[in-house]
Amino acid sequence: MTYCLSIMTHEGLVMASDSRTNAGFDDLNVARKMHTFVQPGERVFVVLTSGSLSLSQSVMNLVRASFNAGEGLAQAQSMYEAAREVGQAVRQVSDMDRAALERDSYNFNVHLLLGGQVRGEEPRSFLIYPQGNPLSSTEDSPFLQLGEYKYGRPILDRGIVYNSTSLKVAAKYALLSFDATMRSNVTVGPPIELLMYQKDSFHLDNYRRFYGADAELSVIHALWERSLRHAVEDLPDIHMEPHPEAVSQTVLV
Amino acid sequence: MTYCLSIMTHEGLVMASDSRTNAGFDDLNVARKMHTFVQPGERVFVVLTSGSLSLSQSVMNLVRASFNAGEGLAQAQSMYEAAREVGQAVRQVSDMDRAALERDSYNFNVHLLLGGQVRGEEPRSFLIYPQGNPLSSTEDSPFLQLGEYKYGRPILDRGIVYNSTSLKVAAKYALLSFDATMRSNVTVGPPIELLMYQKDSFHLDNYRRFYGADAELSVIHALWERSLRHAVEDLPDIHMEPHPEAVSQTVLV
Repeated sequence: MTYCLSIMTHEGLVMASDSRTNAGFDDLNVARKMHTFVQPGERVFVVLTSGSLSLSQSVMNLVRASFNAGEGLAQAQSMYEAAREVGQAVRQVSDMDRAALERDSYNFNVHLLLGGQVRGEEPRSFLIYPQGNPLSSTEDSPFLQLGEYKYGRPILDRGIVYNSTSLKVAAKYALLSFDATMRSNVTVGPPIELLMYQKDSFHLDNYRRFYGADAELSVIHALWERSLRHAVEDLPDIHMEPHPEAVSQTVLV
Repeated sequence: MTYCLSIMTHEGLVMASDSRTNAGFDDLNVARKMHTFVQPGERVFVVLTSGSLSLSQSVMNLVRASFNAGEGLAQAQSMYEAAREVGQAVRQVSDMDRAALERDSYNFNVHLLLGGQVRGEEPRSFLIYPQGNPLSSTEDSPFLQLGEYKYGRPILDRGIVYNSTSLKVAAKYALLSFDATMRSNVTVGPPIELLMYQKDSFHLDNYRRFYGADAELSVIHALWERSLRHAVEDLPDIHMEPHPEAVSQTVLV
């Protein structure tokens, strides 16, 4: 499984991905799921991938080749066009592989998150489906997730507000969302790649790769668990009363 | 969908369930999923149900009828025997309904949580599968969940420790686990039934049904979100560095 996340705030984007892949329970590997494309001062794109690693590698090969040739993402005039370029690559891989996969009862399973900024526009992020169609983040739904998303969602639902969450705080929420997911699900695992993109910087200045034994991550994890426990204990005790059946005739005596 | 939870601590049990049922997105209803069986001073059982409401109603009808006749749960000599009694009822309903369901491509889907205490034993809880077999909670895995379990799991993983979590604090964790789940998933909804069973009390003295607009629940929700936000903001800022590609030759200039 996989967990990937993009958060859009008024200050920019936070993108994060885990690095665990598995083909069955006994075949775990490490693979980077974060791919970056930069024309300094002009455009920045970050793509996060989930689904079949074979398929996402093929998609990224196509996207990278056209970028390096000065086409595709290198020419997109907007984030929407960029999302369509990535979707087009998904459809090319679908044309190559879908029939062979489905003949053996595999799904054509590849989802991507694209975040970034093209000069002249605000930063934005998109989720690209296996059918190639894009879904945009919005101010009301500022984060997008891929893969094992449920464990790490409540903390984001409670904390992320497009207009008020700063980029530095959004990065902390992202890390806590990953920490919650990894704590509860072994198919999501380190290294975690975390990237903070400052609006209008057109440069990738704020990046971090956290390995499993990262000292800073351990400190944040420990501080967080301690804060949570204290916060729970500080809540008022819940007022309880006897169960209705404890005072009704349905009790056998 | 459904969310049900049992937490076992050294002081007793916390059991909780939501009340939302749905047959499709446009057919939402309210149904109690918590069922209690008490012989004061002798035995207490709480059953939480998930899956097809038709099936769980049939199971509970059988369990209730035998209890009222002084059999089944009324005679079980241990929590394990009680779990087997409930599993037996699941198998009876399977004999009645499984073939007809599967003929129309429905799964035989009913899961139950049984918690309680029989005099002479410690409190315990069990998950009973659609096949009728029981899984016990343990000191290392002190909580059991049914249904939409992922959203509300990280807070439990971080907080619940069999030997040290008090019953009152476990009840707060349970409520927060439900709050997280309802915040992120509309198929889990109020009223929430919450029950705290004090070891060796053999009585249901601590129960609460929270409706959607419950004032105490709103206060706890608001206090919790505020505490969480403060805790996130108080974490140290994450140390970031330039992305490797920002300083490598793969950047197009």
